[in-house]
Amino acid sequence: MQESPTENNQPSWLDEICWTEDGLVPAIAQDAETGEILMMAWMNRESLALTVQEDQAVYWSRSRGKLWRKGESSGHQQVLKDIRLDCDADVILLKVEQKGGIACHTGRRSCFYRSLQDGEWVSTDPVLKDPDSIYGKH
Amino acid sequence: MQESPTENNQPSWLDEICWTEDGLVPAIAQDAETGEILMMAWMNRESLALTVQEDQAVYWSRSRGKLWRKGESSGHQQVLKDIRLDCDADVILLKVEQKGGIACHTGRRSCFYRSLQDGEWVSTDPVLKDPDSIYGKH
Repeated sequence: MQESPTENNQPSWLDEICWTEDGLVPAIAQDAETGEILMMAWMNRESLALTVQEDQAVYWSRSRGKLWRKGESSGHQQVLKDIRLDCDADVILLKVEQKGGIACHTGRRSCFYRSLQDGEWVSTDPVLKDPDSIYGKH
Repeated sequence: MQESPTENNQPSWLDEICWTEDGLVPAIAQDAETGEILMMAWMNRESLALTVQEDQAVYWSRSRGKLWRKGESSGHQQVLKDIRLDCDADVILLKVEQKGGIACHTGRRSCFYRSLQDGEWVSTDPVLKDPDSIYGKH
């Protein structure tokens, strides 16, 4: 059933969140300075606790089934400035400082780089850095 | 299997979206002027098609199991200014004009009115209008 608030040393504010059946919550990352929406990803209890503990965004990768410290490969960490919860307690908002100015794996600032124009999704935002050079050999 | 692009008279750009198993996609509403994040809700194919057709946010209410024209009770419609898709094609971003300046059913501007401070969710944003007067007798 429900975990007790202190089980796994996880704090009680995590219990106020309405997790999905899979134990996840969507988290929106917004640039704390400009207000630009950078991305949305998912978190589980552990990743959200780590996000607050480490003051940087830690997501749960549904495709890889593991913790995903944003920027672990790219260096594009998201430093936490504020963390917010919505009225239904089922969406998290992170206000962050985006290291390197790039949130998207395509090398763009934001993942929301396509706009619907005349019935087609059109890429409107420039690639700031070649993904090969972001994720290539270090 | 996959619907043809024109089935139900729905346009082909809807087919580029990665819908959940339940046929939904999360949609973030952002104030087009200020960049403030107002809310996140869910859409199905029909509600997203209607959003574009009517130039106002139409969500799918998971709790009520029906279309939800934002503002149908409150008058707080969200007029569509731009609609964006993320790199994984599984999150929608709406840039909107928020009628009445209130998105949240609690009478606040944004649904994200709670901030984590010293291990507690603290309401930081003012109630601009009593919900009873928003949803009361007309």
